[in-house]
Amino acid sequence: MRKFVAHRAKALIKHATASIFNPHHHLSSSSNHYYYTFRLARFLTSIASDTSMASDKSTPPLTVDSLNPKVLKCEYAVRGEIVSLAQKLQQDLQANPGSHPFEEIIYCNIGNPQSLGQQPITFFREVLALCDHPTILDRSETQGLFSADSIERAWQILDQIPGRATGAYSHSQGNKGLRDSIAAGIEARDGFPADPNDLFLTDGASPAVHMMMQLLIRSEQDGIFCPIPQYPLYSASIALHGGTLVPYYLDEATGWGLEISELKKQLEAARQKGITVRALVVINPGNPTGQVLAEENQRDIVEFCKKEGLVLLADEVYQENIYVPEKQFHSFKKVSRSMGYGDKDIPLVSFQSVSKGYHGECGKRGGYMEVTGFSPEVREQIYKLASVNLCSNISGQILASLVMSPPKVGDESYESYSAEKDGILQSLARRAKTLEDALNNLEGVTCNKAEGAMYLFPRIVLPNKAIKKAESLKKAPDAYYASRLLNATGIVVVPGSGFGQVPGTWHFRCTILPQEEKIPAIVSQLTEFHKKFMDEFRD
Amino acid sequence: MRKFVAHRAKALIKHATASIFNPHHHLSSSSNHYYYTFRLARFLTSIASDTSMASDKSTPPLTVDSLNPKVLKCEYAVRGEIVSLAQKLQQDLQANPGSHPFEEIIYCNIGNPQSLGQQPITFFREVLALCDHPTILDRSETQGLFSADSIERAWQILDQIPGRATGAYSHSQGNKGLRDSIAAGIEARDGFPADPNDLFLTDGASPAVHMMMQLLIRSEQDGIFCPIPQYPLYSASIALHGGTLVPYYLDEATGWGLEISELKKQLEAARQKGITVRALVVINPGNPTGQVLAEENQRDIVEFCKKEGLVLLADEVYQENIYVPEKQFHSFKKVSRSMGYGDKDIPLVSFQSVSKGYHGECGKRGGYMEVTGFSPEVREQIYKLASVNLCSNISGQILASLVMSPPKVGDESYESYSAEKDGILQSLARRAKTLEDALNNLEGVTCNKAEGAMYLFPRIVLPNKAIKKAESLKKAPDAYYASRLLNATGIVVVPGSGFGQVPGTWHFRCTILPQEEKIPAIVSQLTEFHKKFMDEFRD
Repeated sequence: MRKFVAHRAKALIKHATASIFNPHHHLSSSSNHYYYTFRLARFLTSIASDTSMASDKSTPPLTVDSLNPKVLKCEYAVRGEIVSLAQKLQQDLQANPGSHPFEEIIYCNIGNPQSLGQQPITFFREVLALCDHPTILDRSETQGLFSADSIERAWQILDQIPGRATGAYSHSQGNKGLRDSIAAGIEARDGFPADPNDLFLTDGASPAVHMMMQLLIRSEQDGIFCPIPQYPLYSASIALHGGTLVPYYLDEATGWGLEISELKKQLEAARQKGITVRALVVINPGNPTGQVLAEENQRDIVEFCKKEGLVLLADEVYQENIYVPEKQFHSFKKVSRSMGYGDKDIPLVSFQSVSKGYHGECGKRGGYMEVTGFSPEVREQIYKLASVNLCSNISGQILASLVMSPPKVGDESYESYSAEKDGILQSLARRAKTLEDALNNLEGVTCNKAEGAMYLFPRIVLPNKAIKKAESLKKAPDAYYASRLLNATGIVVVPGSGFGQVPGTWHFRCTILPQEEKIPAIVSQLTEFHKKFMDEFRD
Repeated sequence: MRKFVAHRAKALIKHATASIFNPHHHLSSSSNHYYYTFRLARFLTSIASDTSMASDKSTPPLTVDSLNPKVLKCEYAVRGEIVSLAQKLQQDLQANPGSHPFEEIIYCNIGNPQSLGQQPITFFREVLALCDHPTILDRSETQGLFSADSIERAWQILDQIPGRATGAYSHSQGNKGLRDSIAAGIEARDGFPADPNDLFLTDGASPAVHMMMQLLIRSEQDGIFCPIPQYPLYSASIALHGGTLVPYYLDEATGWGLEISELKKQLEAARQKGITVRALVVINPGNPTGQVLAEENQRDIVEFCKKEGLVLLADEVYQENIYVPEKQFHSFKKVSRSMGYGDKDIPLVSFQSVSKGYHGECGKRGGYMEVTGFSPEVREQIYKLASVNLCSNISGQILASLVMSPPKVGDESYESYSAEKDGILQSLARRAKTLEDALNNLEGVTCNKAEGAMYLFPRIVLPNKAIKKAESLKKAPDAYYASRLLNATGIVVVPGSGFGQVPGTWHFRCTILPQEEKIPAIVSQLTEFHKKFMDEFRD
């Protein structure tokens, strides 16, 4: 009771303090203000305490300066400043329609197809729904609502899950039966064996990338080779795990070509700085660059990693997204096996995700990594890392198995599935071409072809006056361009500086994902904005 | 072409090498064997290379010794050695029924209710299925298959998701509408306001815990206060992020009491070693210990954290799991608000998960953390960490919203929902009591009550002869006991050494989750085993 009175007394003093010294206590967002109010209230509270005086040794209050510096260093452009501005504008539009010269925000900043109206593949969703609520599988109404093969597939999947319990944690690598299906899909894709025990199912590809970085990076002296431009998951993850990003530049002039001579040069430079380069990240098809590597080039990369003792981290999440007839996707595993390298000759990790492809199921957070060429002892450590988070979500696991073993010829859903898939991929190819042509028509803009993936990464030669203006605002010139574009048109793109680029060049990444009927309007808004921008700043 | 010939030549040499020096090349699991074969093949390959000689500087092959030492240090007992043994025995039983003196493995190692036959809550699964496949919402057959309020709830949820796109990435903190529902549920629980902007939705609670450790830990000099015994997620996460676990011991004699005097003593000791203790982890209800903190005790803990400047990390994932009428769950936020501490007075994080409670939806990987009392600048860093992984899975997000706002009186599903919920919780209470009594009947075993959570953590006074035997096998005595129990009965428990315990005492953690009809057989197997074990080793 005595203690309770003391608590109340403290509370009163505390509130009084807050009101006297800061009438907007609960609204204030100024960190200094907050800090001093906090300190003062704390001091008075400690005086009021009936149990003890505040210790001089007590931990200082939590400020940004006292956080893990690796967290502070980490950057993630695709959800960065430009997206915050977009969200603000969206709120404006909702609160005051007509408050901006556009009617809606068009998010071209992130590969999130269903947010822009792409519909999910019906068969996949049927199976997921049935696995979520298996008690309806036996009901007659279900026959009328769901395709026969989705019902059959749901039964197959449930039979692979012990106790048919889709609400139970699975094996930390993912359910074994689902891994069997994925392995079969990889075999069908590559023509080489795949072992379900090599698969680690994850909540999207991102946790798999983090896991590998966590495994490999010991200190700042450990380097990870990354393409520039790169998808900022890699720079963020390397920063969070305290390693060094060792860049290799893709050659824009040859359609974002990956040259072995560049790898050699950069590797040598890193080694001379005392960096142990541990792994090479390749993103194929490229993000943000959209190129698809030629098989010959992939062989050279495999050989280079083999020779230099590098783990090959192959980001292959866009493997289904190929838009030009002259290019095909070849997995690095297929390439290395076709060179005669077996299971133990080269450490190779392939990342795959349900978020991309023609299905674009970003919200389901499914994915896997296929880990080959590691010793059993190293594998055990990867397993341990996976086990600390118990397992990835089962719906994502099921979806990963569906993506890697979709309906086949003869299945009831095959025709509708194929029509949905082909419709999406053909439309994406048309959108890529239209946007690429439109960009190439702009003054000072050149844009390589999007052979694959979901992005265009045009280069903009900005006038000096625009660069100076950006500098005066303490912004990167491409970030300035992107914010002007957003404010004028509602179109959200990510500045090239978020991905890395040859110093002195400026780019932005724009997805090809807005729905096809919106593309003409986007093209005309972009064209009109660009013309005005250039008129304003032309040297 | 020349290159292709060279590749083939290399491949042939490599295979020949493997066959000559190791005919079981692809089967060998000996790491030395593997290593030498690998080195030799590599050497010959480099001789065969037509492009260059192997560089002396090339990165050495990937071995365990060259991995991140933080990963090597990390341990995770609930999926450790004993579970590997259990999986092996299960395979034996499948291949050769009758090969062991039991018919099945009973997994009491992990809180995974649905893996042991617990059925999901029908209403939750109905809503999830409808959100996965919304096109059936308008069909007449759906009315017959799904409850009216599940259909209504699915519509509500879909209307909160932009474009009704359950396949799109959400806001990195989770969909705003779903966070609104969760905040409303927290308010209803606590009687104090909750802000949806304070919620970060995560794939289960584990990623949230990792995020906070990543944020707070800068080096080994940063300490995190953890109860001993503790749930090994904490020790694993602290090890992975390179911090120091600062222990405080729960008092077994007072039902795993948490004494402020112990906190003070251990904090002082840590500070004298130069450790900056940054946060205090409290698990309430306790894991593995099952106690439920009294509100008075919670107030003292809040006061202690406030005074010492510690972030309070409240693991409240078992908030629905209370089995004794004399105890109630109070969230630390409610307690601190009722003491008069406002939103900015104490940094407090509450972890919640859909994996526990009466629903036990482990496989769905849903959860959230409620983050209050941090400055906007620090919050921004947490948001950045969340954004690097884009978002948690949407089904898990939906389920978290359902768990925090289940059917209400008057809803069509309310009665069936309540019956399912009460049936599960009452059965868990009976199972906890039966197992507790059975354990207390064993020679040398004492077991505190499971007031809450899903576990019993009995103490075993092991005979010296048993301890010596364990030492001769280089096992912890409780690990030896657990492996003998498993080999004799198929029952999997986790040795106390995986959670921490007072040196010289031995425990194990056993879940209360096997289905009720199996409990009598488990009790008799356990009793029979224990008697034989004591007969074998009694001093």
